[in-house]
Amino acid sequence: MKLYNEADPAPNPRRVRIFMKEKGIDIELVPTPLMQRAHKSPEHLARNPLGQVPVLELDDGTHLSESVSICRYLEELHPEPNLFGRDAKERATIDMWIRRIEFRLMTPVGQVWVHTHPFTAAVATATMGQQFKDYGEANRKIIAGACHLFDRELKSRDYFAGTRYTMADIVAQSTFDFARFIGVDIPDECSHLLAWAARVGARPSAEFAVPEARMTQARNARKT
Amino acid sequence: MKLYNEADPAPNPRRVRIFMKEKGIDIELVPTPLMQRAHKSPEHLARNPLGQVPVLELDDGTHLSESVSICRYLEELHPEPNLFGRDAKERATIDMWIRRIEFRLMTPVGQVWVHTHPFTAAVATATMGQQFKDYGEANRKIIAGACHLFDRELKSRDYFAGTRYTMADIVAQSTFDFARFIGVDIPDECSHLLAWAARVGARPSAEFAVPEARMTQARNARKT
Repeated sequence: MKLYNEADPAPNPRRVRIFMKEKGIDIELVPTPLMQRAHKSPEHLARNPLGQVPVLELDDGTHLSESVSICRYLEELHPEPNLFGRDAKERATIDMWIRRIEFRLMTPVGQVWVHTHPFTAAVATATMGQQFKDYGEANRKIIAGACHLFDRELKSRDYFAGTRYTMADIVAQSTFDFARFIGVDIPDECSHLLAWAARVGARPSAEFAVPEARMTQARNARKT
Repeated sequence: MKLYNEADPAPNPRRVRIFMKEKGIDIELVPTPLMQRAHKSPEHLARNPLGQVPVLELDDGTHLSESVSICRYLEELHPEPNLFGRDAKERATIDMWIRRIEFRLMTPVGQVWVHTHPFTAAVATATMGQQFKDYGEANRKIIAGACHLFDRELKSRDYFAGTRYTMADIVAQSTFDFARFIGVDIPDECSHLLAWAARVGARPSAEFAVPEARMTQARNARKT
């Protein structure tokens, strides 16, 4: 197997790498540098018509994309430590939290990124004709609402889907770290959510390898 | 078990009902009329803090929300006919297609709905301060792109995730029918996608019970 991959801060490839570290899985990583448009090359579009990474290439030549789907597949090959749930109810609960995080947090974070950040102006123009900056900024309200909702939930438990670390936490962690890269932070008053972020951030799998200078540049770029 | 539910055209409750019909599952349906804000009542927020339907209430009092997570749970209780995949590779492929449909089609359809339709002006104002109409309209480009991508995929197979009807088709079908309700149609040139829509629309599970007058009113409302 091979994983077509991109380095931090790209959040979706990182999810799979965090998952692999938690499982102790070793898969060949094939760099697919987005800055060089490697994900839009004819070779890569044959692997994933959406032109995205990560993509897992199986030994029979099948290509699987979508970070969570790749992790689901790897969970079946490497069941322990379990990250997607041990019974029907826990599996559904983890899946529910993955979806809540993706629709309530990841989607508006992506809209702030695409519609307000100078790094993505060309992408927005190509796909939608322009950046819609006021709309992009308004997504911060949605993100703040999601943070407050998650904070209330994490008041009574240590992890998103219950008492243990699961795929839902990986999805949230990768999204919050990417949000930080683009200058969107967890509000100070969300103490339970901040405590959760510190808890998952202390795990050996949590490395977020973005040089400080690049982080500062990305966080400040929007203001200039 | 009970399913807190809303009638057509609401796309997410409909997914679970299509799934139940395909499986022959009978669960008590509890009406949760959105027009009367039943989904934002304190009772319902205790079931789902996001204030959405559907919600499945288990006999032990647990509440599961998110349409796809509810269906995943029901699949484990009622494995046949299989709709989420028979082995690891098929399960990952179906999951990948569910995600592609939700992020590439359902999300921009939702943005057209929230940001351009008069029926949702109050919701957009409450959550984001206003409707961003130009942004909403620009989502039609994303939807058209998704339709063309799906059309190319369906040239070589009858269903989204392979040679048989699965949960990916239910997710796509419910989204396209809702899109039609708000006046967003599959482009005429997408003949393979239109043939797929006719194929899944002919199944007994496909009933979309929206009175013609209401459909016409909703489709035309944007223009007035």
